[in-house]
This record gives sequence, C-alpha cells and structure tokens, in this order.
Amino acid sequence: GMRRGLVGAQARLAGDKKSRMRAPCTALGAPSLIFLHGISTISFQTWLSQFKQLKDYALPNSSWSQGMMDLYSKFLEMCKDGTWKRIPSYNRTVDHIPGKAGSNEKEQKKTRLFLRSMDAEGVGFEYAMFFNPSEKRMVCLFQPGPYLEGPPGFAHGGSTAAIIDSTVGSCALVVAGRAMTANLSINYRSPIPLGSVVLVDSKVDQVEERKVFLSCEVRSIDGQTLHAEATGKDLAAGFHR
Amino acid sequence: GMRRGLVGAQARLAGDKKSRMRAPCTALGAPSLIFLHGISTISFQTWLSQFKQLKDYALPNSSWSQGMMDLYSKFLEMCKDGTWKRIPSYNRTVDHIPGKAGSNEKEQKKTRLFLRSMDAEGVGFEYAMFFNPSEKRMVCLFQPGPYLEGPPGFAHGGSTAAIIDSTVGSCALVVAGRAMTANLSINYRSPIPLGSVVLVDSKVDQVEERKVFLSCEVRSIDGQTLHAEATGKDLAAGFHR
Repeated sequence: GMRRGLVGAQARLAGDKKSRMRAPCTALGAPSLIFLHGISTISFQTWLSQFKQLKDYALPNSSWSQGMMDLYSKFLEMCKDGTWKRIPSYNRTVDHIPGKAGSNEKEQKKTRLFLRSMDAEGVGFEYAMFFNPSEKRMVCLFQPGPYLEGPPGFAHGGSTAAIIDSTVGSCALVVAGRAMTANLSINYRSPIPLGSVVLVDSKVDQVEERKVFLSCEVRSIDGQTLHAEATGKDLAAGFHR
Repeated sequence: GMRRGLVGAQARLAGDKKSRMRAPCTALGAPSLIFLHGISTISFQTWLSQFKQLKDYALPNSSWSQGMMDLYSKFLEMCKDGTWKRIPSYNRTVDHIPGKAGSNEKEQKKTRLFLRSMDAEGVGFEYAMFFNPSEKRMVCLFQPGPYLEGPPGFAHGGSTAAIIDSTVGSCALVVAGRAMTANLSINYRSPIPLGSVVLVDSKVDQVEERKVFLSCEVRSIDGQTLHAEATGKDLAAGFHR
C-alpha cells in the first residue's frame, strides 16, 4: 500500500522534466528507507515534506562535464517508462531517514555523509545513482574531482573504493532493505583520471538467507576501459525481495 | 650512500623532541620516495629544503583526542631507538615527490591528496603513520571526524576502505619502492564510532617477484574490538628489499 502510494506520488511528480529532476524522492531510495527505518509513526505527507526542503546533490551542477551531463540525460530518459529510477542524495545521513530528515539536532548538524562532505562543487565526489528494479542493478555516474587525488592526476584507490562501497551498499539496501557491507573486494585494473567520467555498475547476483552477494564494474563511458571490478557481500537485517 | 646520508641527517634532526616532531622527513617515507622517483637530478640539500616549507599534517592538532595524543606519544617514544619511524604527510601528492615538492605549477595547485582534502582540523581524516622496518609493518593512528559519516554516528565503509588502502599502500611503497594497489579485500567486523581512535596495523606477509602481499587489521586502542581486517596485493614496479 505504502509502496504503491509512493509510486503514484512519483508519477505525479514526474509530470514534466523540470519537476522530475527536482523531485525529492523519485527513486526506490524512498521505499528502501521505509524498509530501513519504518514510517509507521509519521504520515506520508509529513514524511514527503521533510525531503522538499533539502538540497539534492545528485542533480547537475556547473562542474559537471559534457560527458557527465550526456550520461545523466541518457539515464533520465530511461526513467520515463519506469525501467530506471533516479536516486536522490543529501549531504547528511540523517536526511535520508524518514522521520529524521531535516532534523536540526545539534549532533546531527555536525556530521556529513562522507561522499558529500566537500562544500565546493566539482572538487570531490560528483555522482548520481540510478536503480533498475527488474535487473536489481544500481549504476552510479561518477566524476572524480581534483581533491580525490592519489597518484598524480588520478583518483586515489581509496576514493574508488568509497564510490564502489556506496554504490554496492545502496544496491543492497534497495533490494534487501536494512543491510550492512560485510565484505568488499576490489581489483584495480586501470587508474581513473581526475575529471573523467566513469560508470560504476553494480548488481545483486544472489541472495542466500541474510547474505546478499553483489558484483560491480567501473568502466569508462565508452565501455572500453575496465578501471576496477569488485565483489561485495552484504548482510541484510530486514526482509528480502 | 644516499640512504646512509639520509639516516645521518635524520639523526641530526632528531637532536631534541621538538625538532624531531617537526622534522620534514624523519621517516622511511623519504628514502622510499627516492626509490620511487629518483633523486639523481637534484642535490640532497635542494631536495631537503623543499620539504621544510610544507605543512606536515601528521602532527598533533587541537582536534586530536587524548587517546590519539597518548597513542602518538607512545609511538614517538618508540622512534627514539630507531625501531619505528614517523612518516610525514602533506596535502598534495606532488609534495611527496622529490624534485617536485613545493611546486607551484597551476595544475598541481588545484589537486589535493584525497585523505588530506578537508581544510578544517578534525572533521575528516586525522591520522599519523609509523613504520617499523624490521617487521615491514606500517601502523596508522586514525581518528575519523564527523564528515566521514556512513551509518548514523559511525564512519562510512568507504572511509575505512580509504584509510586501509592508504596504510597498506604506504607499507608496500616503503618496502617495495614504486608500487600500485592491485587488489584490496576488506572484511567489516564492527563499525567505527566517529571521534574514536583506532589503530590500522598493516604488514608485508610475502613478496613474490613483482607481487607484494599484505595484511591489515583495524582495532580499537585497547585491542579488544576488531573493526575490520583486510588483505592487499600490490604490484611493484621498482626493486624489492
């Protein structure tokens, strides 16, 4: 019921391109957060209104390259028939949690979601995720900025690990409900140039009781360069679909 | 010769505690960088002077907790007889490279080493590394700040991966010379509370031709909580010791 209600709200919000791009919770991210934390104590309207005040960092900004914009537009186009869903992104963990989004509690004001912790546009992690429910697949368009440097001119292996962990973890969260990464194994194949755009492509391979097995590839836009491949194992605390 | 010369310079610099704490290159980090990039084109004095202007971010600041300070002092004490070496840390990749440190080239001014990319003290990665040559072991004292959040109140799995990658990679670099991470596999055991202090403890287990195999544990200061364990495989491009 709640899930169907959300889908209806998404359809209404998606009336034109502009409102769809600004929709606060057009993605499976929303239902997954319900599974994660429960929504029984607040009304749907209250819950929805909490997200309206928040800045969504997964929307285009002036730092995005043409390649990033083109890829974003391509996935947005594929959202029209519901094949893909855009995942919104805020700069605090708490803002992703129904009933707590927009909270001004002192402790929560001090913290930032790791991948959204840099204020200036373009210097850190510029990324946007899209989810394909039927394929249980989460992709992340990623443009690493100059503050993610490892080897001169290239993204730090730790920043690559972070975007993979975030994408794989989000995929597990949407598919399995409440989930935590238990293992992440990354093979680094080719370093990622700073300022380039790559596609982080993850999917659920198997679900065994509480264990969710995922795999992930990081490739250049043209698909020709395999930058990294990874496997992940998440432990679900909720139920599975 | 160069290596012995450096050790001598370090001994002179280490005359009193204050100067040792501020010494620009008291660690095996320095010789390893020579192996990494070669020093033949510049004089030792020129090279040394480049580091003197740079801010070393691996020194205590007001954001460090008592636990972090105590652990730092303990390792500094163990540096006195040469068992351990303190590794300096700058906020740009280029500043770690002999002949390029302190460079003001436009492109290099724009980039930041990923783990030193946040300006404010205490919000991001606060860490200091020490190397034990005879054990081929690199430890990293790590205090994750509020901008590294993943689950509410805990460090993001991606930030844990980043500090592990950095520690394991530095260990491989010092031991094997020029090296790149080829694989990193992390088992997450227990989430790391923001503001706590953990010890990232890595060592070289085996060297096979170009391959360097390493292992790593992340534990609470008292050793009782195993937060994560990891294995790494690095490919060396230089020679091995």
